[in-house]
Order: sequence, then structure tokens, then C-alpha cells
Amino acid sequence: MKIVTSVHEMRDLSMKERSKNKTIALVPTMGYLHEGHLSLLKEGRQRGDMLVMSLFVNPMQFGPKEDLAKYPRDFERDKKIAERAGTDVIFCPDSGQMYPGPFKTAVEVTELSGVLCGKTRPGHFKGVTTVVMKLFNIVLPHVALFGEKDFQQLVIIRQMVKDLNIPVEIIGMPIIREPDGLARSSRNIYLSADERRSALSISRGLSKAMDTFKTGNRNSTELISIVKNEIKSSGLKEDYVEVIDECTLEPASATANNARIVVAAYAGSTRLIDNVSLEKE
Amino acid sequence: MKIVTSVHEMRDLSMKERSKNKTIALVPTMGYLHEGHLSLLKEGRQRGDMLVMSLFVNPMQFGPKEDLAKYPRDFERDKKIAERAGTDVIFCPDSGQMYPGPFKTAVEVTELSGVLCGKTRPGHFKGVTTVVMKLFNIVLPHVALFGEKDFQQLVIIRQMVKDLNIPVEIIGMPIIREPDGLARSSRNIYLSADERRSALSISRGLSKAMDTFKTGNRNSTELISIVKNEIKSSGLKEDYVEVIDECTLEPASATANNARIVVAAYAGSTRLIDNVSLEKE
Repeated sequence: MKIVTSVHEMRDLSMKERSKNKTIALVPTMGYLHEGHLSLLKEGRQRGDMLVMSLFVNPMQFGPKEDLAKYPRDFERDKKIAERAGTDVIFCPDSGQMYPGPFKTAVEVTELSGVLCGKTRPGHFKGVTTVVMKLFNIVLPHVALFGEKDFQQLVIIRQMVKDLNIPVEIIGMPIIREPDGLARSSRNIYLSADERRSALSISRGLSKAMDTFKTGNRNSTELISIVKNEIKSSGLKEDYVEVIDECTLEPASATANNARIVVAAYAGSTRLIDNVSLEKE
Repeated sequence: MKIVTSVHEMRDLSMKERSKNKTIALVPTMGYLHEGHLSLLKEGRQRGDMLVMSLFVNPMQFGPKEDLAKYPRDFERDKKIAERAGTDVIFCPDSGQMYPGPFKTAVEVTELSGVLCGKTRPGHFKGVTTVVMKLFNIVLPHVALFGEKDFQQLVIIRQMVKDLNIPVEIIGMPIIREPDGLARSSRNIYLSADERRSALSISRGLSKAMDTFKTGNRNSTELISIVKNEIKSSGLKEDYVEVIDECTLEPASATANNARIVVAAYAGSTRLIDNVSLEKE
């Protein structure tokens, strides 16, 4: 497994593979890998001749009061996990490599970036789309894999790729959960034992809403209430609970095709997100 | 010479050339070709195994009160000129191909897009950078050529390419002028005989400023006044005359390296631009 820190070296490596008509798969990460990342790497391994995992904690997607400085990092551990998953290249540039000199450009999917998480985290998705565009241009992947846990991010990236004709296939992969149901996230490490217990109310609320949905209840307000009540009774602070259309991210009826319940809530100062598709069977 | 109107067909063609390790050169145009475009095509012919000229009058870069509807078009004439210049492919999609369905994404070089022409044409450069990004992703060129007449556009595109690590080499080509000095532009066709005579004051003013500069005068205010007076006395309405830094587009001293005089003015309702480098010899 190669460790590449230079933008030019990464580009050259990808150009060389491309000139041999090899397929490149990219899994963009901010490191501190968990089972969610692992599922992306495994799928990427199937889809690319060369599997690249980028590891870059992108300052541009953190707000001034967010957790950029304390975001968990453990490169040695990540390296082992990535290697075991069959990664060929870890691309781990520093900020100076990614943002040298005065930086003046932004890629933004305007309409989709101001709702849901974008309301609480202004500028976050602009940071995400800009760095993903940069990573695509450096790594030159044929296919890139993202988790559905960050569902809004996935929708925004798909829209960007479509709108800008970016020649990369985007694969969304299902949420990976802890055995008790909590969605895997690098930020789970922040949780105290009490917060960890409370945090379970999110996936439990979603499960209960799904059970109700499966009995034939298509009332969005009721489904949302089930999740809100579960979260509230556990002591978590709700950010939002909504039923949305999976393409537009706008509030939708639970009867719609492509409806999904999305949640964000705070356990102490840790912001957690989760979601579940309201699939008609 | 191939005429390609479909985004998918263009992409496939470029992918095929790339898989054979052929070099692709792109000259983006809005058609109604003149000698300026011709110089880009000639240079592109030298630099690419496959020379693609895009021809797309991009609605996104026109303001609501601008000349989108009446922008001059003559496809048959353009086809002949492009073919004579050795163009391999004209990529001429319609708006439905370029902006299908709801379009939500923008690429913007924020700081550089609000000054000079950007003040008078809000949103113009956002439209330019977004469509150029799309064209790059569709045509997949190794090299793309732009004229220095649209100097701000060239600087903005260079900044976008640098910031987003776009794997395309940008070539800027010198302004091509009519025998009497007027910078070639598709919009010159709008000028009445009187306006055409008045329009000459722009290049004449720039020439006079350059003569003064060459005598050793490095006073920006005086150089600017020379151009302003020339324009004013001819009856043109000045939009701006500035000495700027070629990288930042900020007002600069004429003593600076990379200083340039840039001009925009109206002849009747036709907006004309021109510029000249204050090269130290």
C-alpha cells in the first residue's frame, strides 16, 4: 500500500493507471475509520483496479465553532484498517497541499445546501462539494463511494455530478450500525456512557416509526412525532426530524416514492445524524 | 469534421481518444467566429491530436436585460471557418443538453467575479465558470485556449483551475485587432457606422497611454486619464478604466510587475472591452 501526501504525485499515479486503461475507485474519508468506511472500501475494492482512500480532515467544511481541532485522528490505526481492506493508495495531503496560496473558488449546490444540516451548519456543504471536486480532479476516479449515513451529502454530491457532468459514478452505500442500532460515526467516540445510552433513542425512534409505517400508517406528522418523542424522552436535544423527498430534500408525504425520515440531534455537544428510507414493499 | 450535439456522444468520443493516449485541445466559443477565435483554433491545432471547438451561447452567463436573444449566430459560416482551421469536432449542444432538468449547482471564483465587468454584469462570471467546468468535464481536454480580450475571464478561469486542481492546461492568446486597432469581438456587428468610428477611441486611448508609459511615465492616474479622455471625447460612455494587477484584478500601480490597463465602455447600447499589458522592457 502506497502512502501519498503530494497532490502532484497522486495525480501522476492516477494518470499512469488511466493510461493503462485501469479503473480507479475512490473512498473519500476524514479518517478515524469505522465499519461504515470499511463497507465502502470493500465495495470500492470490487469496483476498481486501483483503490484509493483519501484521508483529509477538510477545514473548509467545519464552521468556526465546530470540532475541527478535536476531530479524532489515528493515522497508524487507519493505515492498518485500510491495508487489511485491500486499499492500494492512501492519499493524505496536508492543508497546505490542498489549499496553497489564496483560495478563491467554491462549488456549491445552492438549493440543497441550506436545508436540514445546512441550516445548522452554514457553509458546511459548500466545503464538502468544493473538496470533493478537488479530490475528483486529483485522484481522477471512475467511481467514488459515499455512505448513506450522511444522506444529504450524498444527494448533494449526486446533484453536483449530474449538473457539472463530472465523469465519476457515485455509489451510495447503506448505513452500518453498532449491534445495538446506533449508526456508526467517527464522532461516536465523543459520547460519554450516558450520552451513548441516550443516543440510541435516535435509531430506536426510527425503528418505531418504521414499524408504524409498515402497519400502513402513511401520516408523516405521526411518524415524525414518534421519532421526536423517543429522542426527547431520552434527553437528547432535537435539531430536526423530517420526512423528505430523497431527490429534492424538501418535506414530503410518507406516501411519496423516495420518502425518507432524516434526523439530527445533540447528545451533549455531539451532533448525531441518522435516517431511514420509507420503502414501499 | 464531426458535428456533435449530444453530451454523451461528445464524452464517449473524448474517452475513446484518451484511451488511445491522444491529446485533446478545446476552444470554447459562443460562435460567430472572427480572427480572434481563428488564432485560438490555430494554436489549438498545434497542441492537440484532436481539436474540439465548442459552440454554445450559454444562457447562464447573460443577465436578464442582456443580449442573449439577439446574440449573433451563423452556424453555416462558423462551420466553414472551423473546418478550414483544422477543427476535428464542433461540439454544439442545445440548452436542453447542457441544462436538463432542475439545475442547482454553481462554480464561482467569488473574489474575482464581483469587480470590473462583474460589477456591471452580476452573475456573468458565475455563468462562465460553471459552463466552462461543464465543458471541461464533457470534452475532457488536456489543454484549453482562451483569448486575452476577455482578460478578467481568463484570470478567473486560471484561478478556478488552480483552486480546484482541474487537470487542464489553460493557454491565453493575445488580442486580435481589426487593421485600425479595434479589438475583434462578435459584438462589433452591433455597431452602427458612427459607433464603429467612436469605438476606435478605446484602442486609440490605450495606444496613447502605452506611448506615455513607454516614455517612462508610471503614474497610473495619468495613464487612466489619457484613456478616459480619449473615450469621453469620442462620445462613448465609460464603464471603467483601471490599472490592475493581472493576478488579483485589484487596482495596481503602473510600476508593478503584471500591471495592465483594462477598459469597458458603451458605444450606444453595445458594451465593448479591451486591455493592454504594461510590460516593462
